[in-house]
Amino acid sequence: MQIDEPTVKAEVEAAFQAYEQALVTNDVTTLEALFHDDPRTIRFGAGENLYGMEAIRQFRRSRSPKGLDRQLDRTVITTFGHDMATAMTLFTRVGAPGRIGRQSQTWIRFPDGWKVVAAHVSIVDDTATMG
Amino acid sequence: MQIDEPTVKAEVEAAFQAYEQALVTNDVTTLEALFHDDPRTIRFGAGENLYGMEAIRQFRRSRSPKGLDRQLDRTVITTFGHDMATAMTLFTRVGAPGRIGRQSQTWIRFPDGWKVVAAHVSIVDDTATMG
Repeated sequence: MQIDEPTVKAEVEAAFQAYEQALVTNDVTTLEALFHDDPRTIRFGAGENLYGMEAIRQFRRSRSPKGLDRQLDRTVITTFGHDMATAMTLFTRVGAPGRIGRQSQTWIRFPDGWKVVAAHVSIVDDTATMG
Repeated sequence: MQIDEPTVKAEVEAAFQAYEQALVTNDVTTLEALFHDDPRTIRFGAGENLYGMEAIRQFRRSRSPKGLDRQLDRTVITTFGHDMATAMTLFTRVGAPGRIGRQSQTWIRFPDGWKVVAAHVSIVDDTATMG
């Protein structure tokens, strides 16, 4: 299995960027389109544990569109073979000084494109040990 | 791509169980063997952001072995094709009432077996929205 094959990595980087742009602009249609529409898709958010695309959709559609802008840091996207990837990043928000967000996503290539099948977002104090 | 092919799923379930057993008994050798030994392996822990296997090793080897026992809840393992899987679970600890842990892992099959390439652990109040 080839790790970080350049053409595959470029595809996932583009999907990741599309997701990020949709997130900070609260483009719910795009956010939903980039998650795999399946009851097995899971998203652990900063304050919610969402099992299944239906729960994820309900959360997205009721979310406040304010204060979503953020700065990414130490983003690492790694691809495994042609159909699988992970995307890990830290982030900060101006409205949350002293706090660091962590976002992890698992991406899978489906016939209709790359989709997130599992995601986890959490916020910790910026005293977190860095390695 | 077949999702949840039974023989693949059984393999990942066994690896996940081995990891869980190693975690609660602080069996550092097994914990390290079940993570992919690579600078691109990343683990966001409850209070640490570990980039690369070397950082993960340092953390494991200095961790207190006390209070690691935990109860899993709503564990969902999903396999994609023959070589990739996600494992998502909630957990609670007797020593942390009112708090819920969330653990997500991405597993990849390598020539020497299934390994975690990305992990994320976070703890939230148990008032988290459940979907």
